[in-house]
Amino acid sequence: MDALSPRVPHIGRLPAGPRDSIADVAGVTVGHCTLDEGPVQTGVTVVSPHGGNLFTHKLPAAVAVINGFGKSAGLIQIDELGTLETPIALTNTFAVGAVLTAQIRHALRANPESGRSLPTVNAVVMECNDGYLNDQQAFAIQDSHFRQALDALSAEVEQGAVGAGRGMSSFGLKGGIGTASRRAVVGSTHTGFTVGALVLSNFGRLPELIIDGHPLGRELAAADAPENAPEKGSIIMILATDAPLDARQLKRLATRAGAGLARTGSAYGHGSGDIALAFSTAQQIEADAECVQMALLADHVLDPLFHAAVDSVEQAIVNALFAARTVHGRDGHIRTSLRDRLAALRA
Amino acid sequence: MDALSPRVPHIGRLPAGPRDSIADVAGVTVGHCTLDEGPVQTGVTVVSPHGGNLFTHKLPAAVAVINGFGKSAGLIQIDELGTLETPIALTNTFAVGAVLTAQIRHALRANPESGRSLPTVNAVVMECNDGYLNDQQAFAIQDSHFRQALDALSAEVEQGAVGAGRGMSSFGLKGGIGTASRRAVVGSTHTGFTVGALVLSNFGRLPELIIDGHPLGRELAAADAPENAPEKGSIIMILATDAPLDARQLKRLATRAGAGLARTGSAYGHGSGDIALAFSTAQQIEADAECVQMALLADHVLDPLFHAAVDSVEQAIVNALFAARTVHGRDGHIRTSLRDRLAALRA
Amino acid sequence: MDALSPRVPHIGRLPAGPRDSIADVAGVTVGHCTLDEGPVQTGVTVVSPHGGNLFTHKLPAAVAVINGFGKSAGLIQIDELGTLETPIALTNTFAVGAVLTAQIRHALRANPESGRSLPTVNAVVMECNDGYLNDQQAFAIQDSHFRQALDALSAEVEQGAVGAGRGMSSFGLKGGIGTASRRAVVGSTHTGFTVGALVLSNFGRLPELIIDGHPLGRELAAADAPENAPEKGSIIMILATDAPLDARQLKRLATRAGAGLARTGSAYGHGSGDIALAFSTAQQIEADAECVQMALLADHVLDPLFHAAVDSVEQAIVNALFAARTVHGRDGHIRTSLRDRLAALRA
Amino acid sequence: MDALSPRVPHIGRLPAGPRDSIADVAGVTVGHCTLDEGPVQTGVTVVSPHGGNLFTHKLPAAVAVINGFGKSAGLIQIDELGTLETPIALTNTFAVGAVLTAQIRHALRANPESGRSLPTVNAVVMECNDGYLNDQQAFAIQDSHFRQALDALSAEVEQGAVGAGRGMSSFGLKGGIGTASRRAVVGSTHTGFTVGALVLSNFGRLPELIIDGHPLGRELAAADAPENAPEKGSIIMILATDAPLDARQLKRLATRAGAGLARTGSAYGHGSGDIALAFSTAQQIEADAECVQMALLADHVLDPLFHAAVDSVEQAIVNALFAARTVHGRDGHIRTSLRDRLAALRA
Repeated sequence: MDALSPRVPHIGRLPAGPRDSIADVAGVTVGHCTLDEGPVQTGVTVVSPHGGNLFTHKLPAAVAVINGFGKSAGLIQIDELGTLETPIALTNTFAVGAVLTAQIRHALRANPESGRSLPTVNAVVMECNDGYLNDQQAFAIQDSHFRQALDALSAEVEQGAVGAGRGMSSFGLKGGIGTASRRAVVGSTHTGFTVGALVLSNFGRLPELIIDGHPLGRELAAADAPENAPEKGSIIMILATDAPLDARQLKRLATRAGAGLARTGSAYGHGSGDIALAFSTAQQIEADAECVQMALLADHVLDPLFHAAVDSVEQAIVNALFAARTVHGRDGHIRTSLRDRLAALRA
Repeated sequence: MDALSPRVPHIGRLPAGPRDSIADVAGVTVGHCTLDEGPVQTGVTVVSPHGGNLFTHKLPAAVAVINGFGKSAGLIQIDELGTLETPIALTNTFAVGAVLTAQIRHALRANPESGRSLPTVNAVVMECNDGYLNDQQAFAIQDSHFRQALDALSAEVEQGAVGAGRGMSSFGLKGGIGTASRRAVVGSTHTGFTVGALVLSNFGRLPELIIDGHPLGRELAAADAPENAPEKGSIIMILATDAPLDARQLKRLATRAGAGLARTGSAYGHGSGDIALAFSTAQQIEADAECVQMALLADHVLDPLFHAAVDSVEQAIVNALFAARTVHGRDGHIRTSLRDRLAALRA
Repeated sequence: MDALSPRVPHIGRLPAGPRDSIADVAGVTVGHCTLDEGPVQTGVTVVSPHGGNLFTHKLPAAVAVINGFGKSAGLIQIDELGTLETPIALTNTFAVGAVLTAQIRHALRANPESGRSLPTVNAVVMECNDGYLNDQQAFAIQDSHFRQALDALSAEVEQGAVGAGRGMSSFGLKGGIGTASRRAVVGSTHTGFTVGALVLSNFGRLPELIIDGHPLGRELAAADAPENAPEKGSIIMILATDAPLDARQLKRLATRAGAGLARTGSAYGHGSGDIALAFSTAQQIEADAECVQMALLADHVLDPLFHAAVDSVEQAIVNALFAARTVHGRDGHIRTSLRDRLAALRA
Repeated sequence: MDALSPRVPHIGRLPAGPRDSIADVAGVTVGHCTLDEGPVQTGVTVVSPHGGNLFTHKLPAAVAVINGFGKSAGLIQIDELGTLETPIALTNTFAVGAVLTAQIRHALRANPESGRSLPTVNAVVMECNDGYLNDQQAFAIQDSHFRQALDALSAEVEQGAVGAGRGMSSFGLKGGIGTASRRAVVGSTHTGFTVGALVLSNFGRLPELIIDGHPLGRELAAADAPENAPEKGSIIMILATDAPLDARQLKRLATRAGAGLARTGSAYGHGSGDIALAFSTAQQIEADAECVQMALLADHVLDPLFHAAVDSVEQAIVNALFAARTVHGRDGHIRTSLRDRLAALRA
């Protein structure tokens, strides 16, 4: 890439889906609720894997904890049972409790016997620390914000400083929400599947930024005063696919998110909770059923999907950087967008 | 044991500490807040590993997920970093969000820079589903209940239907909080250490109950109408020790909790979140330090501690059953205590 | 049980299969090759999951490492891919290399393209340290012994001091091979399935032995001079089932082996490699297929299978003790059988 | 980089040690035994962590299984106990058994009581499938080759098509042994430590090759006839450091090997066993000691070491490609070196 170009590079050799977004996986929608109120720069983002009742119609899912400095909720049960039974909510670290309760309340509206005659619901809430821009100690996120994010669910996914991404930082620049997708052709029948990624990007130090193989961060950092704050970030990486995979295979897919992350310059920093969650929309698991029929791809044909996972995560991180606008937050803190930084260099 | 005796058997060959309680590990205290209000039969229990500031003076810790059908919060970071940095809060499943926020608020009072210049705090909240007796959907647990449990911290540990144990069921009987300890002598120097256990016991079906090797549950079940509710329980097992162990070794210790659990009749039921957390009070890890000095026991002398862990967990489960009183809860639900069940048999 | 009785107790409430053996799972066979030559008291045991070519027709499988002080080969790939593609060979620790090569040579005879146009074969060899009775340093096990064990495959499973069990010790008594099975009825259709266990039992110290809840070891130990050798044993626990389970579910099943083990007195001793491997014969995975159809039981109906796993492992350990005869090995070492020990007490 | 240049790029911003080799970590030596006999193109490489007796003076160690399609031996016990007690042997997949036995025999010479009064030794043998060039079915590797590799131990590390690397392929080019090191400065005292990497590189398809961010593989592949063989490779990544880390921290370090690997174009292909093993030479753990004193770096200062791990692994992979010479193997198979391929392009 040309370091000074505002053009977003296309990562890798696979084609993107029509929206280059996680919503290219049919049925997946995303909603944001953004709080932009002076020192409160935060929000909630919800990724909805399908339009029905996830508690009664679960999806195969898995988690890869690449660096476990994180406070996400709901991951242990996914590891045991291999299913996702709520939408995935993203927010700031101190809001996990509020959104967890909001998730449970929402699930109860559709499943009033959960926690009574039915098992309790395993609500998934994932988080990054947006404390540089956002006053987390205001505990601004409420039940209503989660519901607003749900109400905003759409296949048109806004990126950048929106929803949970409002207050996030990445590589010393403005981070936030990014999304992308890749199409892969699998097996001797050349069957096409989509892998979509959505990231909440809040990691990295500027000198380490690599965009499409180009060490852009070194150039930008050289032009700047040094920033030496230790990394206190994190990244959440959601992968969706319409390929028929089970939980074991989805853990393999989720693990590949770490490869995409690495290519943007991450060394999985100590303080960065780098966590991936993958789900498949191909087959629903009915909660009542005593027997489950699954048609699964064989592991030996999965390489194209692995590449799609790597590339869509890398692309989503890059997209978050290019989409995010400069944000002013608490105590005079500012995160400049990559676009503004590049424009300043050109000037 | 004599099946009809009200005497609590002593499990295993190791001696108990003076209190037969987790508080036999010096510095460990426990506090309960109990809600007993008609259909609301629930509470919060806090296990405090030491009297200081855990965020600045962390303890080595580890988790063993024996059956991951559970919604506990904070476990992933313990797995990565091997440290505990808040007290351990226990409560009902739907209250995890409220207690998580309460934990963070409490940590902020002592560490106002957490989430700003310092990392966010990793609050530990563990849970069982007390929905048979307690109306979880009332969302009765508030920030104030967590603080009341903290205010009640004491080395005198009340057992049974108290705190988080208020609404719990075990083997179709009244369950709840149990605690125990064992003294073990280690190595050629015969150095003495204590292992203490505290359980939130909410698992098991009656016919499976084994007490000190005796299949008491079969006898009790034979006398009863059959209960065929599928297991929707769980058990949280906290292990404390003053032996100098690191996180890897504490994971080994925590794994042994599963052996104590098995001996009471558990087959780690599908729906039972069986999770153990172990910490060592022997050495504190200062958050600021760049180098940590540790004196650790060698692994090849740990067998006495492993036995202490197994026996103290089994004893704590038995103690919970013997300590708990009959509780009347929501919708006319009743859980009879083991003592009342035994008395009825004798009558 | 009566401590002095030679009768083998029936563990738990579930019925055994017709042979009370892993071979009650249709298609499973077991073969032994036993070396009984003065200081060489060792052997090879092979568990064959089906009569066909496992490399081309794999089975779902999983491993649970309960205490990882062990040197078994082939487990990492099972964890990743969830399939078993060779028979399971058991032998002494120093013979793993020889049997690993023998397994590969055997697989090559049926699959000559393995390691060329086809992937290399993942040979599974599991082990315990029989060094008390057997002179492991003689490296007596050769390729031919593995082949003899294969040639001896049968649905009639000999137990005790045979095959890999020849030199094993358990609870200071003669250990070795034990097997058992349980029948379980699953779901609302009451469909019957079998879980079979085969153990290579080489763990435990005498005072800790529990048989069917009865602390027999304390009584036997009290009658003896104390034995204080630290535990250097191990146990390998193989679980077979005809229930249709996938690798994730089989890991859950394998984890329950630890509960059966605990009930015999094990605290998962430091030096004991306690490892379980479970496989399902219900469905074969063709190596060539690009898509795999699976019909799986739902997790919420698995509890009867979990109980069957716990009880069959406990029974298999007890069976090994009752079946094994006294063996004289290297350097005048003797392991007395449980039956001989009980007879001496009665005398 | 200039795609056609024969110059080896320097990866990342950290300086290399004086040899740019794993032997920059004091005490670490490497020995090769190479078999170059027509269709037999294979060997053994040994990485020796210190010059003493590893069985009596163990080192903290850990493993990260990034993709577990692999047959390495000895990893499970490292995971449990966190120690390395033999040198690390590398070889071809079918030779693991022979080298495992050779390792045990070697350990017995120094520790004749292993497997008798002392525990059995946990021999580490790691492998890749060199079956494209090498006739693995010849089972050419013998005990003597392991001993020759030991005899050849040196701080001067030969790279490329030597030792275990003799028959390995990477990105459709000649792969094999590569090594590199990075110096990192840690904490407020700016203490310097070294991280060294040695890889056995046998993974990747040509179009995916990235060298220092540059997609060289696409250019090379465009000039060629397409190669569509599915990946049947693997990579073993050994990390050594003189930084005082314990097993938990070394697992974090080993996990970062996956980031370096990703930057060379790997998507952790299905058939590629991608496994990292890290050890620290800073402190030895005496097998006899009942108490172990450890001085450890705090986790929050580890980021420079994480970057050193990422960059040294990426560099080692690149170095293997640049060092390896074209090799002719079985059945007329040829792997052309990167240098020869670049030279042909320039011509």
